[in-house]
Amino acid sequence: MTTQNDRTRRPFAMDEAIAILSRTPATLDALLRGLPEGWIAANEGGETWSPFDVVGHLIHGERTDWVPRAKIIMEHGESRPFDTFDRFAQFAESDGRTLASLLDEFASLRQENLRELNALGLTSADLDRRGRHPELGVVTLRQLLATWVAHDLDHVVQISRVLARQYSDEVGPWRAYLRIISGSQG
Amino acid sequence: MTTQNDRTRRPFAMDEAIAILSRTPATLDALLRGLPEGWIAANEGGETWSPFDVVGHLIHGERTDWVPRAKIIMEHGESRPFDTFDRFAQFAESDGRTLASLLDEFASLRQENLRELNALGLTSADLDRRGRHPELGVVTLRQLLATWVAHDLDHVVQISRVLARQYSDEVGPWRAYLRIISGSQG
Repeated sequence: MTTQNDRTRRPFAMDEAIAILSRTPATLDALLRGLPEGWIAANEGGETWSPFDVVGHLIHGERTDWVPRAKIIMEHGESRPFDTFDRFAQFAESDGRTLASLLDEFASLRQENLRELNALGLTSADLDRRGRHPELGVVTLRQLLATWVAHDLDHVVQISRVLARQYSDEVGPWRAYLRIISGSQG
Repeated sequence: MTTQNDRTRRPFAMDEAIAILSRTPATLDALLRGLPEGWIAANEGGETWSPFDVVGHLIHGERTDWVPRAKIIMEHGESRPFDTFDRFAQFAESDGRTLASLLDEFASLRQENLRELNALGLTSADLDRRGRHPELGVVTLRQLLATWVAHDLDHVVQISRVLARQYSDEVGPWRAYLRIISGSQG
């Protein structure tokens, strides 16, 4: 066990970040592949996303967000702002695809991006390099990579929440105990 | 794609519930097995649970909650209230164990419980059978099984949230975009 006292925060460490990033495709594969279509297409109403939509969003991030932005920081620093990320690209890009093919593509892109990240041979000093986000302003490479990790987990949360809430009525009185349905953060 | 209009709710269906329940052990295995110890022991402060604690809790549920309660409903109906569930049993039971052994045990117990559930040969009418929860009062077998599903997903959410929040500071200005860290339900 760790001897660290504060278990609520960890400093960014490349190996620990990669430990999470490398597991996300298999996590989503285990959770989603082969599920009945009703679960895959489930959402939280209105314009909210289904598990299918989220996997498409993660694919778009692999193509245009994390490693491409890391390369912009390494090559251009703050002088060239990141390209704007399209949060809705997946609706056109995933159209007509199967979930299985999206999961395959996500796994393949993630593997390639982690290979490219490794090839950058980033040093501790590199992590302090600064880039420019089009809306957030100056950010560091460390913050970008930490966000990649948290973003993965945020979407694992979202997918699990969307699925759980399908049974918001079916759980009856247990609703009070299920934070994911009652909405409390507990 | 489903032709259902409301994608926010699904009626309980045994095959769809089992589709989720059977995937949870592999999902947690993909997410957690082999992660650095700091991630496994992470929590949200105070008495909140780590991923390690949550897996122990899920094991205790397999032993004493879901299928045992389903059998109480089938055998005794409302006449015998369920045994009280100990939400803290895992702290003693998991002491000294490795995460790998807990993941193995959870997978094995879940498989056995799904085999037992299948062996009950529940009919649609059986799902309306009533039992008595020690705190919530009268509940149906359908509600119990729907809660089993939502409870799994609630804890996948919890584990992912605990992990993501470790980087609450490291993500810097991106905090505003990460619902899991900012606390908004989005």
